[in-house]
Amino acid sequence: MGQAARDKAGLRGVAAGQTAICTIGADCDSLHYRGYDVAELVASRCFEDVAHLLLRGELPSAAELRVYQERLAARRALDPRLERALLELPPTAPAMAVCRLSVDWIGCAAAVAEDDDAAERSEALLALLPVAACRWSRHARGLDWPGVSAAPSLAAALLAMLHGEPPAADDARALDATLILYAEHEFNASTFTARVVASTRASACDAVAAAVAALKGPLHGGANEEASKLLGRYDSPAAAEAGVRELLAERQLIMGFGHAVYKNGDPRSTIIKEVARELSARRGQEQLFAVAEAVERLMLEEKGMHPNLDFYAAVAYASLGIPTAMFTPLFVCARLAGWGAHIAEQRVSGVLLRPAAEYVGPEPRPVPEMA
Amino acid sequence: MGQAARDKAGLRGVAAGQTAICTIGADCDSLHYRGYDVAELVASRCFEDVAHLLLRGELPSAAELRVYQERLAARRALDPRLERALLELPPTAPAMAVCRLSVDWIGCAAAVAEDDDAAERSEALLALLPVAACRWSRHARGLDWPGVSAAPSLAAALLAMLHGEPPAADDARALDATLILYAEHEFNASTFTARVVASTRASACDAVAAAVAALKGPLHGGANEEASKLLGRYDSPAAAEAGVRELLAERQLIMGFGHAVYKNGDPRSTIIKEVARELSARRGQEQLFAVAEAVERLMLEEKGMHPNLDFYAAVAYASLGIPTAMFTPLFVCARLAGWGAHIAEQRVSGVLLRPAAEYVGPEPRPVPEMA
Repeated sequence: MGQAARDKAGLRGVAAGQTAICTIGADCDSLHYRGYDVAELVASRCFEDVAHLLLRGELPSAAELRVYQERLAARRALDPRLERALLELPPTAPAMAVCRLSVDWIGCAAAVAEDDDAAERSEALLALLPVAACRWSRHARGLDWPGVSAAPSLAAALLAMLHGEPPAADDARALDATLILYAEHEFNASTFTARVVASTRASACDAVAAAVAALKGPLHGGANEEASKLLGRYDSPAAAEAGVRELLAERQLIMGFGHAVYKNGDPRSTIIKEVARELSARRGQEQLFAVAEAVERLMLEEKGMHPNLDFYAAVAYASLGIPTAMFTPLFVCARLAGWGAHIAEQRVSGVLLRPAAEYVGPEPRPVPEMA
Repeated sequence: MGQAARDKAGLRGVAAGQTAICTIGADCDSLHYRGYDVAELVASRCFEDVAHLLLRGELPSAAELRVYQERLAARRALDPRLERALLELPPTAPAMAVCRLSVDWIGCAAAVAEDDDAAERSEALLALLPVAACRWSRHARGLDWPGVSAAPSLAAALLAMLHGEPPAADDARALDATLILYAEHEFNASTFTARVVASTRASACDAVAAAVAALKGPLHGGANEEASKLLGRYDSPAAAEAGVRELLAERQLIMGFGHAVYKNGDPRSTIIKEVARELSARRGQEQLFAVAEAVERLMLEEKGMHPNLDFYAAVAYASLGIPTAMFTPLFVCARLAGWGAHIAEQRVSGVLLRPAAEYVGPEPRPVPEMA
């Protein structure tokens, strides 16, 4: 199959619907959530502002934000039956499958109807799923559970529940920036999956569970974990350069570079790189950052490829001491906001997403007699 | 949005990839699995023949079929930890969410890797998921669990576990026919969902879980349950005709009619109708069948619409005494074969399914200052 046919096979450039939630611009070089540049949102707003923007349509006022944060924080809880189910899973279970199981469990326990309110359901998941994911992470690492955090921001709550102690304000703010950047990204594979499922009129919980499945893939959300594993292999920029040269010679895929829609660089990458630079300096992880910059330089020189959001997000998360297995679950927590907005939008459009296929199989043939 | 734009929005007629598994024909009026007419398969083969055809590429010989059935039956088991988790769910939990939770649980317990073998994984699920679904159904109905069935055919095992006693051979054969018809259907919404997830290189378990989410929707797999609920409202053909006329006057959607790709009738419908006719006569459900025929006649006269597979499948399942909540889970059990084949095929193509979007939202605007 030639490149043109492959691109067509991946529906690249084919509009699968309309959206008012997000655009990467006509030239695929910017990112706006409902008209707001994501760089501006990171500079002056928090994740809950962005969740409100995506799920409720507009940025909240300062008073609305406070109420929204309180409402989300108040809904955090860990059902003891879900906790028991999590504790019975082996620590080797894939964290993203555990996330999906938690979504399913929440949907089962609430007996979610097909016509549940997508924004409302997403907000419930925004409160409940981070708790389940962190509870799982502590169990998988053999650590005590510090209990559900009452911190008003999701970022602070996540760090408190992952690490077992309240985070420094700067650390929470850095994680918050990554959550804003991960919150939404047009018709990426997981959001598209959520829209296909929503188009069958399944519940928002169903659509989210399917989106988690898609985000698990190494070519999608799993990329930040793969990038982290790569960077962890090298203890100096020189070692990284030599190592990645070898991988390229073996024609191996380097995760965290290139993007399905951004051909000249991911606009989120410059933002996350500054977050990672500041974090790694403050937390004594300068070497990790230097290794990452060496890989970035080499990939541009050798392959003409730019890092995407996942690359320096991996550096930021590693600097924050977040276990690698939790990188993609954190991506889930952020993207819940975007998925919920797309599920609501897809429902309004009302059309079933059902493409055609090009048949290349056997011609009609008779069923052979059984011997 | 006009009809043309709506169709385009649903990717209708847009080829999302190549497939050698199944075709509905150039005129969208037939159904062949790997070249074999589905009518011929129903007439002379069993579901495990078809699962082997879809997952392993060819129909098995008689000896291969025996081994394949034995291998699948031997893998049936109910992990006590999964059983405990199921028994803790409220009986009101949606059966399809329970199915998905079971898939997730199986994936977590096995610590499934991203590059699991799709055929192998699907066969494991073909053995394990029906057991979990039936265990759940007995619990939800407050009935004792008869234990895992060792019947060689999935159809006989399903009926034994649902009803608590081994089925009549004719009943198992009728259910088997429905499983063949439900096993595969090209790029329908759930299979397409599985392919999108597989395109991110997530595991086969992930792709199946997402497909279950899509199949749950009332516009997709949920249609057989909706059709059954409709038919259950009427105790005579005359009452059905009057009732459906009223629903049509209120512009309500009648489930089980029309199809996204078959515009002149679903070729599976004539096959399933004969299965349902024979079953309903044998099991004293002639009135249900007569009600269904009255609705079919009216829908053709009034709307020019033909029944799809789901309509008489609902009659067949109701005649077999299967609880309505289990109709779509049975569809899942059958479609596991088709999903597995598509997941394997999508992986070979290697391309990430990532469409574009048409942006219709706000123009760029500055982030307002916080008050």
